[in-house]
Amino acid sequence: MSDDVDLFAPVPGFRFAGISCGMKANGDRDLALAVADQPVVSAAVLTRNLVRAAPVDVVAERVKRGKTRAILVNSGNANAVTGAEGMKATLETTGALAAALDVPPEQVLPASTGVIGVLLPTEKVTGATPALLAAARPDGIEDFAEAIRTTDRYRKVSRRVVARGKRRAYSVLAVAKGAGMIHPDMATTLGFVFTDAPVKRSFLRQALRAAIDDTFNRITVDGDTSTNDTVVALASGAGGGAKLTGECQTSERLVRAMREVLEDVAKMIVADGEGAEHVARIEVRGCASDADATRIARTIATSPLVKTALHGKDPNWGRILAAAGRAGVRFDPKRATLDIGGQRVLERGRPVMDAEREAAASEAMAGPEVDILLKLREGRGRGWYWTSDLGHAYVTLNADYRS
Amino acid sequence: MSDDVDLFAPVPGFRFAGISCGMKANGDRDLALAVADQPVVSAAVLTRNLVRAAPVDVVAERVKRGKTRAILVNSGNANAVTGAEGMKATLETTGALAAALDVPPEQVLPASTGVIGVLLPTEKVTGATPALLAAARPDGIEDFAEAIRTTDRYRKVSRRVVARGKRRAYSVLAVAKGAGMIHPDMATTLGFVFTDAPVKRSFLRQALRAAIDDTFNRITVDGDTSTNDTVVALASGAGGGAKLTGECQTSERLVRAMREVLEDVAKMIVADGEGAEHVARIEVRGCASDADATRIARTIATSPLVKTALHGKDPNWGRILAAAGRAGVRFDPKRATLDIGGQRVLERGRPVMDAEREAAASEAMAGPEVDILLKLREGRGRGWYWTSDLGHAYVTLNADYRS
Repeated sequence: MSDDVDLFAPVPGFRFAGISCGMKANGDRDLALAVADQPVVSAAVLTRNLVRAAPVDVVAERVKRGKTRAILVNSGNANAVTGAEGMKATLETTGALAAALDVPPEQVLPASTGVIGVLLPTEKVTGATPALLAAARPDGIEDFAEAIRTTDRYRKVSRRVVARGKRRAYSVLAVAKGAGMIHPDMATTLGFVFTDAPVKRSFLRQALRAAIDDTFNRITVDGDTSTNDTVVALASGAGGGAKLTGECQTSERLVRAMREVLEDVAKMIVADGEGAEHVARIEVRGCASDADATRIARTIATSPLVKTALHGKDPNWGRILAAAGRAGVRFDPKRATLDIGGQRVLERGRPVMDAEREAAASEAMAGPEVDILLKLREGRGRGWYWTSDLGHAYVTLNADYRS
Repeated sequence: MSDDVDLFAPVPGFRFAGISCGMKANGDRDLALAVADQPVVSAAVLTRNLVRAAPVDVVAERVKRGKTRAILVNSGNANAVTGAEGMKATLETTGALAAALDVPPEQVLPASTGVIGVLLPTEKVTGATPALLAAARPDGIEDFAEAIRTTDRYRKVSRRVVARGKRRAYSVLAVAKGAGMIHPDMATTLGFVFTDAPVKRSFLRQALRAAIDDTFNRITVDGDTSTNDTVVALASGAGGGAKLTGECQTSERLVRAMREVLEDVAKMIVADGEGAEHVARIEVRGCASDADATRIARTIATSPLVKTALHGKDPNWGRILAAAGRAGVRFDPKRATLDIGGQRVLERGRPVMDAEREAAASEAMAGPEVDILLKLREGRGRGWYWTSDLGHAYVTLNADYRS
């Protein structure tokens, strides 16, 4: 993130709000709204989990159809595994907002995060809708970011500016929630991208999908995919200019900016959680394909043995190599070279770690982010994953306290 | 295990030994031998990890070729990722035993377990080989079981007797090591099956493979597969009678006995480890295929969120259903029914847990073994997995202490 960007400055064409409707017992903000001045172009990437919450089903349907006017988010209740009544609750709450905005219900996208298996309290949401709308203002981004938090230790916001020629500049803002290691019933990842750039819908979809593949789809905390994971992008076009279709330099810059803001907030999600002390970037190079490399990176990143070694600042190359070996991808271990925190620990299949390198690697692992690089010399495929360490706080939060 | 079986009674045709050769610093037994009176029929199932230790490569080669006279096991050193020198050490140590037995080297199968990346101390093994051979005796099973332990809290032995008509009975003995959660560089699973039944080699191979698929391939502690995992079966035929080919009732009983003894020791492996307090059997029924059901069971069994819930005795159906939903198998969550410890918690997609059922399920989870049953009503496919809980001791052993 560059220092000269005001994270919470307005994004032309949007207003934001975040208030309390009484869903969270402690009175924290739990209802968030992003509303566009006009119906805008939208795209969404949704959980691949078969067990999808009602709001995810509704977004899948509505984002296919046309434009979007508003996103209604509640935190404290996931409205997942709540059957037909849960669907009714989502339709009623988004319907009340649509009526208040005087737009068709299809223009309102819902997102819910919180406890599973408890029906969304419809009246609390519909009762608070007038106040929520009244609170919406261009500089309400901070409130929005606060209101979508569940167990997040901090709000997650990132922003870039994309220049178009000498006279125009567009904002690209990402706001997310998710604290991987904490309280898994609330481990949902939500992400929202807002831009005032004018974009063709097909381009926005393609750009969001590509950005998610490079960011949110490469983070892992415990391998579990929530029932509610949702990322939505809205493009107001209020920044002016001809519609971007993906074919020009500005389009490329916009794609890069989307990837950067989503990478920022994705890494914040990995780093969040009582238990997480370090983030590791696992990169695998030299595979037959990118898919192979990503699969190995993912297997290393989700290995509990690797994750506990990260916690212990232990440059344990044996665990990393053994995880790679069970990823289901063919490679010759005798050609594998491994660097941990810039220290070579394995050279063409042979351990080369001495006391000095071990100390240096361990020191690198003590920092907030460590790079682990595995080179396999089988081809040009490349993949990576971000992961966190696995410590006592994970167990405490997930086992010792009942959810 | 039936009470009337003497676990350590001889298995006709075999002698066993377990001594110390000084590989373990604390002087514990670390060298084990099983030697047949004659070359015998053998079969092996080996790790699928691409990063295989030298002894695994040697077993793969030798078990294809002909009969086996002896198994030489060392604990304390895995001889993995040790390159050409590691292979030389395995060839030399098995060669010394073969010379002492006056058999071709191909008749000796090696197995190693212990630290990765450290060369096997050849002289310690070859120097102790005469003493090892001298110690071999029919009632040496207990010594053998002791000497293959690494961080195992207890030895793992199971036994069944298979009747053949009214006059004959064969023994089927399994001896294993492995303590899933402890010290991952030593997390290797080794298993040995000894029987005095006379069997055709193709039948022994097929029976071992089927038994492993139903037992060792259905246990998970942390999802990691070791570089050294090896299960070997030897059949001496000393029990007499015509060779079993798999086509008779006795063959079926033998297959069942192999599965039972391997299941016993596999569950002992899951239950072992400082951290593990409970074993859970995750069964999934009603899938389109057994493979689908097994995949879902495996995904649930490896979910850290499910495993921490097991530790906390929390009948957290949301975590179980969410894990099932990301297994990559199509099913309709609205038809899913879930029982935890015999308590119905989800009925056709709807939570039915009340305070009473929750308390009963939690109580069931406090026991040494709990059943979790997920029914999906998509077909007749069935699969299962055994898993352990994930607690603080796992983190302590894997992160806090350097390996």
